[in-house]
Amino acid sequence: MRTLLFLVPWTLLAQGPPARIVSPEVHADRRVTLRFRAPNAAKVMLNREGARPAEMTKGENGVWSITTEALEPDLYGYSFNADGVSLIDPVNPSMKPNLLGTTSMFHVPTADASLAWERRNVPHGAVHRHFYDSAICREARDLYVYTPPGYDPKGKTKYPVLYLLHGFSDDARGWTAVGQAHFILDNLIAEGKAKPMLVVMPLGYGDSGVLLNRELRFKSFELFRESLTKEIIPLVEKAYRVNADRSHRALAGLSMGGAETLFIGLNRLEVFSHLGAFSSGGLPPDLAATFPGLDAKANAKLKDFWIACGKDDGLFAANNKFVEFLKERGVKHEYVVTEGAHTWLVWRRYLTTLAPRLFR
Amino acid sequence: MRTLLFLVPWTLLAQGPPARIVSPEVHADRRVTLRFRAPNAAKVMLNREGARPAEMTKGENGVWSITTEALEPDLYGYSFNADGVSLIDPVNPSMKPNLLGTTSMFHVPTADASLAWERRNVPHGAVHRHFYDSAICREARDLYVYTPPGYDPKGKTKYPVLYLLHGFSDDARGWTAVGQAHFILDNLIAEGKAKPMLVVMPLGYGDSGVLLNRELRFKSFELFRESLTKEIIPLVEKAYRVNADRSHRALAGLSMGGAETLFIGLNRLEVFSHLGAFSSGGLPPDLAATFPGLDAKANAKLKDFWIACGKDDGLFAANNKFVEFLKERGVKHEYVVTEGAHTWLVWRRYLTTLAPRLFR
Repeated sequence: MRTLLFLVPWTLLAQGPPARIVSPEVHADRRVTLRFRAPNAAKVMLNREGARPAEMTKGENGVWSITTEALEPDLYGYSFNADGVSLIDPVNPSMKPNLLGTTSMFHVPTADASLAWERRNVPHGAVHRHFYDSAICREARDLYVYTPPGYDPKGKTKYPVLYLLHGFSDDARGWTAVGQAHFILDNLIAEGKAKPMLVVMPLGYGDSGVLLNRELRFKSFELFRESLTKEIIPLVEKAYRVNADRSHRALAGLSMGGAETLFIGLNRLEVFSHLGAFSSGGLPPDLAATFPGLDAKANAKLKDFWIACGKDDGLFAANNKFVEFLKERGVKHEYVVTEGAHTWLVWRRYLTTLAPRLFR
Repeated sequence: MRTLLFLVPWTLLAQGPPARIVSPEVHADRRVTLRFRAPNAAKVMLNREGARPAEMTKGENGVWSITTEALEPDLYGYSFNADGVSLIDPVNPSMKPNLLGTTSMFHVPTADASLAWERRNVPHGAVHRHFYDSAICREARDLYVYTPPGYDPKGKTKYPVLYLLHGFSDDARGWTAVGQAHFILDNLIAEGKAKPMLVVMPLGYGDSGVLLNRELRFKSFELFRESLTKEIIPLVEKAYRVNADRSHRALAGLSMGGAETLFIGLNRLEVFSHLGAFSSGGLPPDLAATFPGLDAKANAKLKDFWIACGKDDGLFAANNKFVEFLKERGVKHEYVVTEGAHTWLVWRRYLTTLAPRLFR
């Protein structure tokens, strides 16, 4: 039986042989039990996306646990907080990558994969990772491109493109690893609800120094605008069969990416015709200076301008204020106020609502 | 300044405002300091790839730390072990995904990107993620395909394909996220050392139940062989411009993937002409029954058969034994014994050595 031992990765060998901990345990009634071994911690909390922090209870062998109420089917981010330190669940391989704090994730499934972002037995697109050196951002970068089912690089069909931006502290993986944008599009396309389109997901920092120094954020917005329009769009339009004109380009994003969508989109109406701003945050406070000359003339160019925010989002007031600014300027838009807070629980739904509106 | 606060992700807000911890800190002299806050832990260890576990020292504010000796430039996996629980470094976004225990990773860089797996300013290939439903493995799956720089789906050039398998507890991301196979190939191709080729990286479990029940491992090997030859290779040969014949197919892998390479490759000589087995482990103990009829007739079919293992690998004896079996059967091969143990520190080097040998 020696070979079995050899298959155990070094990290597990180093850990010794503790009793196996099961976490998360998703029960049939949609309650979820989380467990975390921390024999000497004084206090362990569960932080779950969409819920208040909750105290966990210490049981045998130093294992802390908690069982939630029955949850609505969805993907939930979570982390443990042991004596003030946020930690992933070490026995759960499902993670939410994040540049300032990786967390864990669990799935409360539906019986019939009826959530828009659940993987179904439908034709799947593919997700392509490209590597490029950004002269504008002075950094080696990657970006992800979703191509829809049936995309044929040798075919004659050309596709429209949604440029989809992540939030502050996420990276270019966010909209696939957490947002499940690829499955959302697969499902909407299979149902005939969304037009087949490419989705381009770049790293959204013009200056990634902004992660540690938020004073850089407006400079970062400006550099990202330059990189998007001068580096990323040309790269995509060279590598893929796409319609390279404004009526076939949409821009959308969440949180910081929502603010970038507004900042870039409304100042580059010659580039984009569809905009979607989800739970936007981080615009410069002087809106008049940020959007010089914005007025009702934009309406002829904006085929669709969709704004959404959750009522419990800390950014709700800022979104309301921005919508008032649009009204003052006579810029047509649709503003949708939903349940929910500043979490992926709303952003997956927003993409599911936005994608069918695009390129009609 | 309110907008700044809103940009902080909910997980950080929940954590409260601790002093910012810097970890890893890679010093100019190539020593590395790791830090981990665990105010009530009795003992915290550092587990670093390629080194023995080392005790960390508790300092102010409950922060444990350790500084390594000067390290050879490389990528190193590591984790903390707090009172018997293996944990990632919560302030480091660089991770080694693993289905049985995610760990963290740091990079001790060279001054000139001279490591074969460091990203250089050379033309880059792309990495494509595909989704398929495996009828044989009865599971929804993904796989990754590297295409070399200049790959043109509309062009006339056809490419050879290396099928590259991960180890036990890894998933289909392993060879890119940890192995950096894409940069290794980019660099070797730029130097003219390797032929441009595709690299296909599937999930290597025929039955993913093997992760929790190792009794399933031989059944898993057999199912994976069926899936590779009947599902994965046809998928790749339909989607890409490749030479669909045995002389343009190589199979290689590490640890469990090395054993699968031997098991599949030597029993399917009509499919593959090049084999590479890295630190292999997990073959059934009865080699004669596992490789029925294997003899010197294989030599006419095997264009290249490369086996490597580190002297400090727990599987070294098993690899020596397998090589003796090959000698008994008169099967030509090259067996390379290197420094090192059962870690990615050797596997990146093995791929760097193997890739230039292929398809010559």
